[in-house]
Amino acid sequence: MKKLVNDVHEVVKESLEGFQAAHSDTISVNFDPDFITRAEPKKEGKVGLVSGGGSGHEPLHGGFVGYGMLDAAVPGAVFTSPTPDPIVEATKAADRGAGVLHIVKNYTGDVLNFETAAELCEMEDIEVATVVVNDDVAVEDSLYTAGRRGVAGTFLVEKIAGAAAERGDDLEAVRAIAQAVNDNCRSMGLALGPCTVPHAGKPSFDLADTEVEMGIGIHGEPGYRRTDMRPADELAAELYEKVKEDLPFDKGDDVIVLINGMGATPLSELYIVNRKIQQLLDADGINAVRTVVGDYVTSLEMPGCSLTLLRVEGDMLELFDAPTLTPGYRKGM
Amino acid sequence: MKKLVNDVHEVVKESLEGFQAAHSDTISVNFDPDFITRAEPKKEGKVGLVSGGGSGHEPLHGGFVGYGMLDAAVPGAVFTSPTPDPIVEATKAADRGAGVLHIVKNYTGDVLNFETAAELCEMEDIEVATVVVNDDVAVEDSLYTAGRRGVAGTFLVEKIAGAAAERGDDLEAVRAIAQAVNDNCRSMGLALGPCTVPHAGKPSFDLADTEVEMGIGIHGEPGYRRTDMRPADELAAELYEKVKEDLPFDKGDDVIVLINGMGATPLSELYIVNRKIQQLLDADGINAVRTVVGDYVTSLEMPGCSLTLLRVEGDMLELFDAPTLTPGYRKGM
Repeated sequence: MKKLVNDVHEVVKESLEGFQAAHSDTISVNFDPDFITRAEPKKEGKVGLVSGGGSGHEPLHGGFVGYGMLDAAVPGAVFTSPTPDPIVEATKAADRGAGVLHIVKNYTGDVLNFETAAELCEMEDIEVATVVVNDDVAVEDSLYTAGRRGVAGTFLVEKIAGAAAERGDDLEAVRAIAQAVNDNCRSMGLALGPCTVPHAGKPSFDLADTEVEMGIGIHGEPGYRRTDMRPADELAAELYEKVKEDLPFDKGDDVIVLINGMGATPLSELYIVNRKIQQLLDADGINAVRTVVGDYVTSLEMPGCSLTLLRVEGDMLELFDAPTLTPGYRKGM
Repeated sequence: MKKLVNDVHEVVKESLEGFQAAHSDTISVNFDPDFITRAEPKKEGKVGLVSGGGSGHEPLHGGFVGYGMLDAAVPGAVFTSPTPDPIVEATKAADRGAGVLHIVKNYTGDVLNFETAAELCEMEDIEVATVVVNDDVAVEDSLYTAGRRGVAGTFLVEKIAGAAAERGDDLEAVRAIAQAVNDNCRSMGLALGPCTVPHAGKPSFDLADTEVEMGIGIHGEPGYRRTDMRPADELAAELYEKVKEDLPFDKGDDVIVLINGMGATPLSELYIVNRKIQQLLDADGINAVRTVVGDYVTSLEMPGCSLTLLRVEGDMLELFDAPTLTPGYRKGM
């Protein structure tokens, strides 16, 4: 295993130290328990947004803490849910008297630990609402998960709900828009190869030199089929058809498109995928009102990508365009 | 070879089409000859900035076209210099009557083709100045290059010179600040493995499972030695010592730090490298006034990273902090 790490058991801690050193103008890292908050002083009366989950998906979640997105993030060990205790502490840190929204990707461990944390917070009179993100259309029930998994759509939930909280929406309104984003959002990914969890020391799965895993999970969970390596356009078309038919997205819909890199895919290849997706959207009369291409929800150094489509309703587009200043995503400031 | 491509000879064209589709609010792609310009209307009297080189280093250079950075970029084939013709056309497109600065990474092909293009432009009464970036301390003379290679410091040259042009500096002033950034900037990289050029179809070099290439070039050119895989802190320290002693950087210096990913290195690992670099800077009394961590000058999907230090002089820091709006880098807008 070749990785830029020291002790494999200190990967998250050392990475957080380097993250803090790079971004101390924007975020602040608390150690033991580990969580990330905004560096800026609290704004009283604002709904707090807290997310978290296993590490290894950076910039998600810690990279999305800052103005216009999250108030706090809780990183677990690599691909491992954080325990309730740091979630409770992060929730307290994010509470500004207006309640806190937990944004939870649908993995059984994350859901259970955020639930427990929410109960503990309620006992301390912090109001907590929760949205569970489950945008992955690839499979129902899988390794680690009952129901559908939460994947790259989480970025859009955090961005749009974060903007709603920033403009002063109350907890129920922020929860409702986060839920609406999830409900209108569908994703699917593919992998050209595995990634290696540092403390495991070996690739998370085997894939032949000629194979692609369609519907991969962000921890390397199996998708719905393996197929021979094919031109990018054919692979992109398969992602698109699965995602489109699921909601379904229809002619005349306005969508935000996210072409997400899983970690080791060159930007040039993500743009080749985007080219085909835009052609397919055009042919179907679906309007790509915004397109984002890059690494937002990764799986360490997995080669591959995912497609997310969000049908924008109400003021989602305005919220998506609102100013944001986080280490991993920035616009308007 | 597993890549998200269609025809290996159409990689750059198709990628540019997808790039255009994603960022048409910021950039505009011209095909045949291929070059990228800003989408915004020309601002008369502003010095134009043009860069370019082989593709495969995205977001460099096309991703840095936009307000506050480049006016145009010229992508060659993957790892292959663009010919003079598109450079001439890009220069004409970038000319606003105040002359154009060519920012050229020091590779023999790039230098020759930009020189030829500059001569052709002068014949059409476009004043052209040139800065050749050669920040890589690893080796003197190498595959493709006489003298030192231009690597990740190019991002800082484009950012700072771009801000100088935006505020209205004349051609000589913009050239001088670009040259000063280069003169105060040193970089070195390492690779944990090779990348694969699509039309070559096989890895650019072989590296044993236990080896690291120290001083790698951004096209996979050999560095100055191969070493056994070691903890990240030891590898980071070797990068740091080589970079520091070269200028040299001294106690009391203010520096901008760039921890650049080569393409397939997780952000978490780049932050582990940053942690060590910041410790070493602290110990030496060198002040990291800004730190940037991420993929800025890549080598397709090469696993590895580079360290760049820039000693800030004059108003470089103010220019670095100035607003920028490009597909690959954004701040303040």
